[in-house]
Amino acid sequence: MKKYVIIVAGGNGSRMGSDIPKQFLLLKGKPVLMYAIEAFHGYDSEIKIILVLPKGQLDYWKELCKIHQMKIPCRIVTGGVTRYHSVKNALELIEKNGVVAIHDGARPLISRELIARTFQALGKGKAVCPVIPVVDSLRIQTNTGTRRVNRELYFQVQTPQIFLSKILLSAYLKPYMPEFTDDISVVEASRRCRTITVEGSPENIKITTPVDLLIAEALLSTK
Amino acid sequence: MKKYVIIVAGGNGSRMGSDIPKQFLLLKGKPVLMYAIEAFHGYDSEIKIILVLPKGQLDYWKELCKIHQMKIPCRIVTGGVTRYHSVKNALELIEKNGVVAIHDGARPLISRELIARTFQALGKGKAVCPVIPVVDSLRIQTNTGTRRVNRELYFQVQTPQIFLSKILLSAYLKPYMPEFTDDISVVEASRRCRTITVEGSPENIKITTPVDLLIAEALLSTK
Repeated sequence: MKKYVIIVAGGNGSRMGSDIPKQFLLLKGKPVLMYAIEAFHGYDSEIKIILVLPKGQLDYWKELCKIHQMKIPCRIVTGGVTRYHSVKNALELIEKNGVVAIHDGARPLISRELIARTFQALGKGKAVCPVIPVVDSLRIQTNTGTRRVNRELYFQVQTPQIFLSKILLSAYLKPYMPEFTDDISVVEASRRCRTITVEGSPENIKITTPVDLLIAEALLSTK
Repeated sequence: MKKYVIIVAGGNGSRMGSDIPKQFLLLKGKPVLMYAIEAFHGYDSEIKIILVLPKGQLDYWKELCKIHQMKIPCRIVTGGVTRYHSVKNALELIEKNGVVAIHDGARPLISRELIARTFQALGKGKAVCPVIPVVDSLRIQTNTGTRRVNRELYFQVQTPQIFLSKILLSAYLKPYMPEFTDDISVVEASRRCRTITVEGSPENIKITTPVDLLIAEALLSTK
């Protein structure tokens, strides 16, 4: 079956306090987004890579690729209003008989091992996502304030999230709902689909603030 | 009212892959634990500081204080089997008519501003804790696997957690239960006590793995 990865980098990075979207900021001298591209290409040089980029940034990305000699072939589509819309745009390039990984462009520290582990787990199902335990105590909003919940029952969800193409394509026929925070949530809203979880990695962080970029640099320095 | 802070550092740091408990490891050349002591002393030089240390490490701590010229006065008690037991030991030094902050010794990046904000919020209640929003999607364990929950309803709990002395003392009369993961959970188990939450800080991380120590160094380098 054909393997695809959709790397979602359609955001404008408003939380970074920078005009440059976070996925283009430099991490140890290289744009954040290039790390994920290299990781998936390193995992399988045959995987079809689809990049979702902000509409106004296609030329900037081409320029970055020239400067950083990025030669890994990627097809590019433009981002939509939300993540859901961005992924939906990318799905037009996907064949029905395949497997699709969807990854946050802002998670540069994804390892080939985690990619492999997640693809492998799909063998047993239709949808897989990596998760990590919650370290801090958790509270939940109530009508009158907040109350404690048992954190041992909860998991934080990471990407890549991996699906059979046909499952994903049919899930995205459903119109947008605000609770679609990731792709698993879209698939689960459309059908009774058992999601398999695999062990994620605490290092597979999502870069959303300037502090996260520093953290990523510290983590990279240990490699 | 007298102000106290109990800094809990009774753990043995088994997740750090080191013989030295995490609270004694060096962060930019200074033991992790000293950062929190300095932050509370910097917030209020009159605050009574009670340190909970592992039983076998009292001499080592004295040695560290000599080497690093730590002169801030602290009373020291020894840790128990769990966090609950450690705090219970420290409570013997607390007067009924006061306010008590309880802080993780492994959270060195606590700021004076966050300490001040948390103490201030107690004015309106009996128990306060700082919280931050959950960034990743969240799933909860079910009988057959896991399912998505709405992450916007959840908060991650940090320390310092601050209480009226009398509330805390009476809560700790209740015997230990495994669900006591922090002090708020002990107080809430003992009575209907509305906990006030204040905005925590993403930088106020808890050091539990070697990677966290690197992250803390990266965060400190921005100060």
